[in-house]
Amino acid sequence: MSLIVQKFGGTSVGDLDRIQNVANRISKTLKAGNNVVAVVSAMSGETNKLVSYADNFSKTPAKREVDLLLSSGERVTASLLAIALNEMGHDAISMSGRAAGIVTDKHHTKARIESIDTTNMKNVLDAGKVIVVAGFQGVNEDGDVTTLGRGGSDLSAVAVAGALQADLCEIYTDVSGIYTTDPRIEPNAKKMDKISYDEMLELASLGAKVLQNRSVELAKKLNVNLVTRSSFSDEEGTLITKEENIMEQPLVSGIALDRNQARVSLCGVKDRPGIASDIFGALASANVNIDMIIQTSGHEGATSVDFTVPSGELTDAKKVVDSFIANKEIGKAEYDESISKVSIVGVGMKSHTGVAATAFSTMSTENINILMISTSEIKVSMVIEEKYSELAVRSLHSAYKLDK
Amino acid sequence: MSLIVQKFGGTSVGDLDRIQNVANRISKTLKAGNNVVAVVSAMSGETNKLVSYADNFSKTPAKREVDLLLSSGERVTASLLAIALNEMGHDAISMSGRAAGIVTDKHHTKARIESIDTTNMKNVLDAGKVIVVAGFQGVNEDGDVTTLGRGGSDLSAVAVAGALQADLCEIYTDVSGIYTTDPRIEPNAKKMDKISYDEMLELASLGAKVLQNRSVELAKKLNVNLVTRSSFSDEEGTLITKEENIMEQPLVSGIALDRNQARVSLCGVKDRPGIASDIFGALASANVNIDMIIQTSGHEGATSVDFTVPSGELTDAKKVVDSFIANKEIGKAEYDESISKVSIVGVGMKSHTGVAATAFSTMSTENINILMISTSEIKVSMVIEEKYSELAVRSLHSAYKLDK
Repeated sequence: MSLIVQKFGGTSVGDLDRIQNVANRISKTLKAGNNVVAVVSAMSGETNKLVSYADNFSKTPAKREVDLLLSSGERVTASLLAIALNEMGHDAISMSGRAAGIVTDKHHTKARIESIDTTNMKNVLDAGKVIVVAGFQGVNEDGDVTTLGRGGSDLSAVAVAGALQADLCEIYTDVSGIYTTDPRIEPNAKKMDKISYDEMLELASLGAKVLQNRSVELAKKLNVNLVTRSSFSDEEGTLITKEENIMEQPLVSGIALDRNQARVSLCGVKDRPGIASDIFGALASANVNIDMIIQTSGHEGATSVDFTVPSGELTDAKKVVDSFIANKEIGKAEYDESISKVSIVGVGMKSHTGVAATAFSTMSTENINILMISTSEIKVSMVIEEKYSELAVRSLHSAYKLDK
Repeated sequence: MSLIVQKFGGTSVGDLDRIQNVANRISKTLKAGNNVVAVVSAMSGETNKLVSYADNFSKTPAKREVDLLLSSGERVTASLLAIALNEMGHDAISMSGRAAGIVTDKHHTKARIESIDTTNMKNVLDAGKVIVVAGFQGVNEDGDVTTLGRGGSDLSAVAVAGALQADLCEIYTDVSGIYTTDPRIEPNAKKMDKISYDEMLELASLGAKVLQNRSVELAKKLNVNLVTRSSFSDEEGTLITKEENIMEQPLVSGIALDRNQARVSLCGVKDRPGIASDIFGALASANVNIDMIIQTSGHEGATSVDFTVPSGELTDAKKVVDSFIANKEIGKAEYDESISKVSIVGVGMKSHTGVAATAFSTMSTENINILMISTSEIKVSMVIEEKYSELAVRSLHSAYKLDK
């Protein structure tokens, strides 16, 4: 008998019919001889409604109050799902984050899970019951309700699965798994059966929106076998697991595209010791995330520095750069938002050479100019002109035979 | 400095504007130099919505689940009100029933408060903060959330006021207090300044809907000074307090009308020992509440028995009576729903004679036939034909000079 944690997000429990569908799915898992702990989000729209209510009274509501407010949404879903399961003849009980033993730190609205006291859940499971846990929430050492921030219900599910040493943690969303690339760009994209935590982390940070890195990192740390699958079909999903659990490592697992980048080119940067550190230190203080950096030695005591930032942080980056221009430490700056970053991810790269070379030659064949390059142990990223995005993704997908 | 518990019902917090009004009112009380503990209901309509959600999945949802579901409504109001108060510069924090230390028995959906651990509330009050308590809920010894049933938020407020030995417990509703009679019937009805617990209990059970008896009984037991007043005006309300606190006891405090009664007349009841006990025992087993009973000795070994029941229980009463008719223990039965009960309530009756006589002579002057009479230490009730209801109320109101 396996213990399976099943997490259902806001869309999956978006209305009463969908909650009934979720109950049907859990019932099926139970009848197949498994134990189930379900973790649920608030019905879609509920959290936004509550946030707008709070916003009506204050633009800066106390975070402790916001947490008590928001935590109610998941509780409603949890008790409704338990009621639906009971009606189907299953002995189900709902639990708040507190009842499930989820203890967090005191950072209201973005608390971190510190520990899970599984006594209560284990007793209920031993009695043969199904548990429905209200996701996204816990309780701090003062006894105050906390919430876990964006993607919080996924975190609840992974943490509960880890604490209970569940055999599987299934994350149900509106997509059926992780694909070799975005199927809207490359219709031949294939759903992967398995992928390692590290590949998933690279893909997620490169724009695959199915899972947040925080949840994948926690699953890796707690050694939780994570499956993402669709709550609207019976299709098998994608297993995210330890590298050792994946027998045949493909050279390349997937191609990711991030259109949400901008390039900053600084010319005439004063060639004095510590200038790069000053610029990037100032950017970090302004909460600007730098990705790739290229520095080229110039002539006549000045260098050029190029880097990329998320488009949303370009305004903040410009302010920092302008202060250096005002101090005459930078000659001039150019900004380019019409770029994108295409990346090849695969653990197979560790032990194979020539993976990057294939990427470069593919770009060359398609006459796509590579503006910047960065590599890691399991990733090659290239910045290109945005207009070539789809062409680059499709030709790389084909070059690495991901459609086979 | 006084400690005032202020309770706001569903209508008073019915939308965001009204929650802001409630915050304004609390702010005013604070600025007048008082400490405040607010107790709030769910926004009107919310609880019904959640009940209908549960109903969608099951006609007999587990009560434990219903309690977790319903308790979320009051939490939402509590945190929103705390946010509104914070924005106005008051240091306010919201508390669930659990955080407020409200411990109940295990009767989910109609739990009784067993104790209140005031440690948490007292610490917060000592720190000079306002507390907003989610009404209607507590937690049982297993740590499960419970709700208190109809009128539960009033009970929360009275219990909290008792436990904290508050100077006053104000119950805000949409009416401005307790009137000498229903102002829709008698426009000259006056709002009472003060009334004793016992009078309030009589008036409530006779149809004055402002407060439920459960709350008044608890206030009496805990010696809580209760005030009912309107959340939509600044008018003073009615103080419900110990009889000793009311200096001038009026002879009669109020006239109550209950249209919701039916009369059952049994003829040819077999004159054997224990027959009355059998009939009323069977009615009690069928959960029919009997109010007045008149038994008249008959002739030829049979008696007549008349009694009144709430109209809603007449069908059940008929079933019981029919079984006695089938056994030939009752000759025949007549039912009359076109009656009403008019009552005179006043602690002054205890020490004055002639109060009932005035009532009877008033009815006689108006040519209203009295069908049944019952009296208690502080009440005289008369059953009359329903069509005379308003006339009876108005002439009694005037006879006892309640309009002066």
